[in-house]
Amino acid sequence: MSRQMVRPGGRSARVQASVHTAVRELEAEVGRDALTVPLVAQRAGVTPSTIYRRWGDLTELLSDVAVERLRPDTAPKDHGALAPDLAAWAEQFLDEMASPGGRAYIRDALLGDPDGTNAGQCSAYAADQVDLILARAAARGGEIPEAEIPEVETVIDRVVAPLMYRILFRPAGLDAAYARGLVAGLLGQGDR
Amino acid sequence: MSRQMVRPGGRSARVQASVHTAVRELEAEVGRDALTVPLVAQRAGVTPSTIYRRWGDLTELLSDVAVERLRPDTAPKDHGALAPDLAAWAEQFLDEMASPGGRAYIRDALLGDPDGTNAGQCSAYAADQVDLILARAAARGGEIPEAEIPEVETVIDRVVAPLMYRILFRPAGLDAAYARGLVAGLLGQGDR
Repeated sequence: MSRQMVRPGGRSARVQASVHTAVRELEAEVGRDALTVPLVAQRAGVTPSTIYRRWGDLTELLSDVAVERLRPDTAPKDHGALAPDLAAWAEQFLDEMASPGGRAYIRDALLGDPDGTNAGQCSAYAADQVDLILARAAARGGEIPEAEIPEVETVIDRVVAPLMYRILFRPAGLDAAYARGLVAGLLGQGDR
Repeated sequence: MSRQMVRPGGRSARVQASVHTAVRELEAEVGRDALTVPLVAQRAGVTPSTIYRRWGDLTELLSDVAVERLRPDTAPKDHGALAPDLAAWAEQFLDEMASPGGRAYIRDALLGDPDGTNAGQCSAYAADQVDLILARAAARGGEIPEAEIPEVETVIDRVVAPLMYRILFRPAGLDAAYARGLVAGLLGQGDR
């Protein structure tokens, strides 16, 4: 949300929901490149100036919608231990982010984001998922010495950052084995 | 270069040089947001259709100019050993990429880059610099066992990727100490 914070409920939240829905529907129907603010406004049943006032322009609106779509909708699966939990999550993260849709949303999120709020939100989603996996490992107790459970920021550096960097800048060789290798390297099970 | 490869020398290279110069001058004079293809064409002494034909649109032209500006213009400094060479390079890379200009160029490079060529070129610049540092360490001989010199791709994963990820998505705490810590962690001199 670039311009205003939206309170849950109320007209503001309804406008946001209908505008987001309009963007998603129109993306599917006419394609992303054909979107315009008047077109979205018409579909959402609001005036164009409502959109300009809240989002600034189409790029910022698309950035908001992208962040919303990049939000994980389930908790990471529980495989009973830290290593398979992290490896499966890393694989799934790569799958989603490297898909054509994922790439388009990452690009949109980065683009219409003058203050970095939306990019930060994408990163926070990943950090929250990782945090959940690490907390689960700690709660199991005994599975792995507490001191060997990595910090969230270390998982970001060693797993999330290389995946996202390569998706954006260096996609050659980016596959599930690479994602699993990053996790194995971090947990001392490989020599990466 | 999105549409055509440019042969060195000849009219094509001259057009590219004058268009790039026009973009840089106009960015400084009127600001990036006021740039248009006709404005750039007029300054460069070419027709707008020359620009559309070669670059597609303004976003792709700006992406090309950005990549050109992100090209390192000197070899990494030689500090006599691998650890200080890598640490100094990482610090300088962070400085340049995290500056307002660097961030704007990274964004431009990613944006007008439908096939990923320009983003790949940015990554290749970093890899080439790292490669030079590693080759220097190997050539010194005896400084460090050959087997302990990391692979280029490992330096990308452990140093370049976290720096670039955090610049784009998670800038809190991003400073020279963090950059040096990544290098120390990679070379086994820290516990990051």
